[in-house]
Amino acid sequence: MAKRYVGIDLGGTNLKLGLVSAAGEVLASHSVPTEADRGPAHVLSRMAAAVGDLCAKAGLRAADAAAVGVGSPGPVDTARGVVLQTPNMAGWKNVPVTAVLRKKLRRPVRLENDANAAAYGEFRCGAARGTSDMFLLTLGTGIGGGIVLGGRLFRGTSDTGAELGHIIIQGGGRVCGCGNRGCLEAYASATAVVERFRQEAGVIANRNEFSCKDIFDAAAQGQGIARRIVAETADYLAVGITSLLHVLNPEMVVLTGGMMGAGKPFLDRIRRGVREMAFPSASRACRICWSTLGGDAGIIGAALAAEALDRTGRPA
Amino acid sequence: MAKRYVGIDLGGTNLKLGLVSAAGEVLASHSVPTEADRGPAHVLSRMAAAVGDLCAKAGLRAADAAAVGVGSPGPVDTARGVVLQTPNMAGWKNVPVTAVLRKKLRRPVRLENDANAAAYGEFRCGAARGTSDMFLLTLGTGIGGGIVLGGRLFRGTSDTGAELGHIIIQGGGRVCGCGNRGCLEAYASATAVVERFRQEAGVIANRNEFSCKDIFDAAAQGQGIARRIVAETADYLAVGITSLLHVLNPEMVVLTGGMMGAGKPFLDRIRRGVREMAFPSASRACRICWSTLGGDAGIIGAALAAEALDRTGRPA
Repeated sequence: MAKRYVGIDLGGTNLKLGLVSAAGEVLASHSVPTEADRGPAHVLSRMAAAVGDLCAKAGLRAADAAAVGVGSPGPVDTARGVVLQTPNMAGWKNVPVTAVLRKKLRRPVRLENDANAAAYGEFRCGAARGTSDMFLLTLGTGIGGGIVLGGRLFRGTSDTGAELGHIIIQGGGRVCGCGNRGCLEAYASATAVVERFRQEAGVIANRNEFSCKDIFDAAAQGQGIARRIVAETADYLAVGITSLLHVLNPEMVVLTGGMMGAGKPFLDRIRRGVREMAFPSASRACRICWSTLGGDAGIIGAALAAEALDRTGRPA
Repeated sequence: MAKRYVGIDLGGTNLKLGLVSAAGEVLASHSVPTEADRGPAHVLSRMAAAVGDLCAKAGLRAADAAAVGVGSPGPVDTARGVVLQTPNMAGWKNVPVTAVLRKKLRRPVRLENDANAAAYGEFRCGAARGTSDMFLLTLGTGIGGGIVLGGRLFRGTSDTGAELGHIIIQGGGRVCGCGNRGCLEAYASATAVVERFRQEAGVIANRNEFSCKDIFDAAAQGQGIARRIVAETADYLAVGITSLLHVLNPEMVVLTGGMMGAGKPFLDRIRRGVREMAFPSASRACRICWSTLGGDAGIIGAALAAEALDRTGRPA
C-alpha cells in the first residue's frame, strides 16, 4: 500500500487533521475542538485520539500512517520537536510535542512552525509547485511567513527565520502585537485592517462590531473609507513584498488567508505596487499568486514535512 | 606549490587586485586606476595586464594563478559571467567579463557581485569565519549586501538577492538613488548621512563641502546636530537589521565600509537597537560585528569564490 502521512494543524480553536498521500492529496480529513484551556497534556491526548479517528475514517489504524507532521503557531524548536510558546494558548511553554506524540502513537513525528508548513505545502503541491525558491505570507489575524530556498524549508539558525510579518515597513510606526513598531503585521493583518478602519471612521464605526471581511465587502461595493483602507492594505503589502524580493529574489510569492476573498483586484494592486517599486530583475523573475491549497496548506505541508523526513532522513 | 588565486575588485576609480592563498591570505596586492571613461574593452585589457603585474610582484606569471575571481558593482549575471550594468561606469551594459578575461588570461574566471564577494570573504576567513549563516552590509556611498546561507553564497533566482540596501524601512519616506522611497540606503548610507545633516543644519552647512566622516568626527566631539544625525543613523541601521533578522535569522551580521571608523559606540548603539526590537530568539542567536578584513574583503572574497569553484566544481 502507498504510504500515508498525517498532517495536524494545531490551532487555538480547532485541531485540524488530514491523511495525506506522498503526492499531497488529502485522502481524509478530521477536525475537533482543541480545548486549549485544559492545557497541553490534554490537547496532546486529543491529538493522538484524533489521529486514530482520522485514520479510521479511511479504514486504517494510526499504525498505518508512515509518519505524523504537526504545524504549530508561535516559536518552535524543530530539532528537538518542542513548542516553545504559542501566542493564543495559555500554558504552552516548552511542550515536547514530538516526544509525547511519538510515545502515544508509536510513529515518527515532525514538528514545524505552522506558516512554514503552509509554505512547504504550497511549494510541494500548491501554487508554487515546480519552483525552488519561494515564500508565503499568511494574511490572517497576524501575518505569518514561510520560506523555501533551493527546494528546502528555510528555518534560520534558531527557527526564527521567515517571521515575515515582523519585517519593519514603517520605522517608529504603528504598534504591533509583538511590541515593536512599524511591522508589516501592524499594517496589513486582518486585525490591523479593522483597527485602521476604526481610527479613520471614528465614533460611528465603534457602535457596531465588524470584521476585516466586512471592510473588504464594503470596499468591493465602492464605499469610501473602506475602499481606501483596502487599497492602502495592498500598498503596505507591496512595500513588504518589495523588501523581501530585494533580500530573497524568489521565483514566487504565495499569499493565503482570509484576504484571498478580495480576489484579483486586490492581488493586482499588490502586483502593480511591487512592479513599481522592486528592481526589474527581481520583479520580472517573480510571480505573485494566491494560494491554491487555501486552508489545507498547513495540514498538507505538515504531512509532507513528515514525508520528507521519512523519505530522505533529513528535515524538509 | 600551493595554489594561488587572483581576486579583482572592479571599482569605478581603481582596480584593486590581490594574490590570495586558499586560506585567504593576501600574498601580494596591486592597484591601478580603472580608467572607466575609456570603456569596458579598455578596462578589461587593463585588468588582464594588472593580473600579470600582480603575479610578477610575487615572482610568478599569470599562468601560475589557479583561477581568477572578479567582484563587480551593480547587477551581474553570475551564471553567464556578464556584468549587466554598473552604477558608476558609463557604457557597461552586458559586458561578458569572464569570457573576455578567460580568453586573455587562459585561466578560469568567476564573476560575483562585489558585496556578495565581500560577504563571502568575511565568511571564509574574516569576522564570520566558522559560521554557516551570515549577512554583510557595506556602509559606503550606497549600502550593499551579501548573504551566506548553509555555508554558500545566496544569490537568489536572478542574482538580485541580497540587495540589502534596498529593503524599505520607511514606506513613502526619503527618495533613494534607486528611485524608490524609504530604502535603508536612503537613510543610512554615507551619502544619506550627509544629506540628512545638510537638511537639518540648513544654510550654514551649505557654505562648505563636508563628508560623512566629518559628521562622524563632529559627533565624536559631542557636537549637537552631528551627534543626533549619527545616533539616528545607528537607529535606522538597527531597524533594517531587525527586519533582516526576522527573515534570515543568521548567526552573524558583519558591517563594513567607512563607518567602521565610528568604532564601538556606534556599533553598540546598533546592537542595542536590534536587541530592543528583534525577537529574543533571533537576537540571542546573532552577533553583530565589524568586518575584520576591511577593504580587502572584496578582493579576498572574489579570489575565494574562484577557489571554491576550482575546488568543488560548483559556485561558492
